[in-house]
Amino acid sequence: MCELLGMSANVPTDIVFSFTGLMQRGGRTGPHRDGWGIAFYEGRGIRLFQDPVASAESEVAKLVQRYPIKSELVIGHIRQANVGRIGLANTHPFVRELWGHNWCFAHNGQLADFQPSPGFYRSVGDTDSERAFCELLNRVRQAFPEPVAGETLLPTLIATCDEFRRHGVFNCLLGNGDWLFTFCSTKLAEITRRAPFGPAQLKDADLTVDFQAETTPDDVVTVIATEPLTANETWTAHLPGAWSLWRRGECVARGQVPAA
Amino acid sequence: MCELLGMSANVPTDIVFSFTGLMQRGGRTGPHRDGWGIAFYEGRGIRLFQDPVASAESEVAKLVQRYPIKSELVIGHIRQANVGRIGLANTHPFVRELWGHNWCFAHNGQLADFQPSPGFYRSVGDTDSERAFCELLNRVRQAFPEPVAGETLLPTLIATCDEFRRHGVFNCLLGNGDWLFTFCSTKLAEITRRAPFGPAQLKDADLTVDFQAETTPDDVVTVIATEPLTANETWTAHLPGAWSLWRRGECVARGQVPAA
Repeated sequence: MCELLGMSANVPTDIVFSFTGLMQRGGRTGPHRDGWGIAFYEGRGIRLFQDPVASAESEVAKLVQRYPIKSELVIGHIRQANVGRIGLANTHPFVRELWGHNWCFAHNGQLADFQPSPGFYRSVGDTDSERAFCELLNRVRQAFPEPVAGETLLPTLIATCDEFRRHGVFNCLLGNGDWLFTFCSTKLAEITRRAPFGPAQLKDADLTVDFQAETTPDDVVTVIATEPLTANETWTAHLPGAWSLWRRGECVARGQVPAA
Repeated sequence: MCELLGMSANVPTDIVFSFTGLMQRGGRTGPHRDGWGIAFYEGRGIRLFQDPVASAESEVAKLVQRYPIKSELVIGHIRQANVGRIGLANTHPFVRELWGHNWCFAHNGQLADFQPSPGFYRSVGDTDSERAFCELLNRVRQAFPEPVAGETLLPTLIATCDEFRRHGVFNCLLGNGDWLFTFCSTKLAEITRRAPFGPAQLKDADLTVDFQAETTPDDVVTVIATEPLTANETWTAHLPGAWSLWRRGECVARGQVPAA
């Protein structure tokens, strides 16, 4: 299995604190030694850092920690390989262009007997996760050849994720620069931080940050991860079948499909 | 205008030496202050480092220099903005997936009155370069829905590049992990290093490397750039209209179309 990390904020925010916690699980407090990746949206562009080595030992991961990149939308992932060799092509998150936007996807779980017929988007690597991302984009593109709002896509995204989870476990994060979509098959947890901000203590590293000192009263920052990253805050767990859509730190739509 | 750097090698090779020379031109010995990027193929995956700031001052560029990444195919670019704002989305090289391969493109020059009709691949940013890349891929995809060898693509690639250069200046590097294609509209220069290897002295920085100490007798490494990067070696200049196809360091096809 793997760990997911997503962030949606209404102001460019650095995710070093949460990333520091997550990367400890990449070989130190967790078994996810088979690579990691994190994508930061920057305007319409996307900055993707990946390494097929354990995040706790990755030179590139150290750079990401040393060099705080501020973004309003971030998707990160650390990997424990189950399907697919260890290598860059099999390292999440995956990115494709659709409608002139960068779409970014990361998956936690495993899909059995999942071989969608090749469509426009095709896998570069050999993971079930990338196949799922390509199939999802192929369906979106078929249903909507021209750009539509995330809200309009929801029925397609939800039905597709609900179908995929019937092949196994399918917790995922999907973003296109404007919005962040999440689907919970077994585990996801969220926290939205807004004024009054307080201190937060990482579970996985001896690190505390006082968000009060790093934020303005108007900041709204939501973090979504497979497991809560902090010990002294209350995270909200998503139930199986729960989906949510985020924009600029706020949840703009959410719901739940019946258990698979 | 911009500077291009490409490498094709028969063994994973680090390009730190050439990259060090190139990045000096990003704000130090050259005027190209508007961003830089470099893509390293790693198996079927691609590692893309970019920064919309001058390469000579880029933290990420310093990482790339500190942390030699070995690859058989590299495409790099430093930018002096002419069309398109300064920003990550307008920073070369550009990457798209086609046939389950990562295609990578960088362009030197400027195209006037160039507005191809939007096809399957669309620009994320607003440069003439990315529009040219998308149009090129749209034509390749239309002509070849399924994978073919680089040699089979040559007529399409050459005719398209020849057409594009009629809009202005179109020196470009295109790679898909298996091969590197180049087209010279005004300037490109190549050098192939093989045994016996000797020392090389950068033009743009006080740095010499003794390739003898860093290679094996079987290594073949070709570097292609808009301007020669070393002072003590003989580079071969490409003539306007010259194209070439490289695989594992060796030129597998080359030719020239009549002057535009």
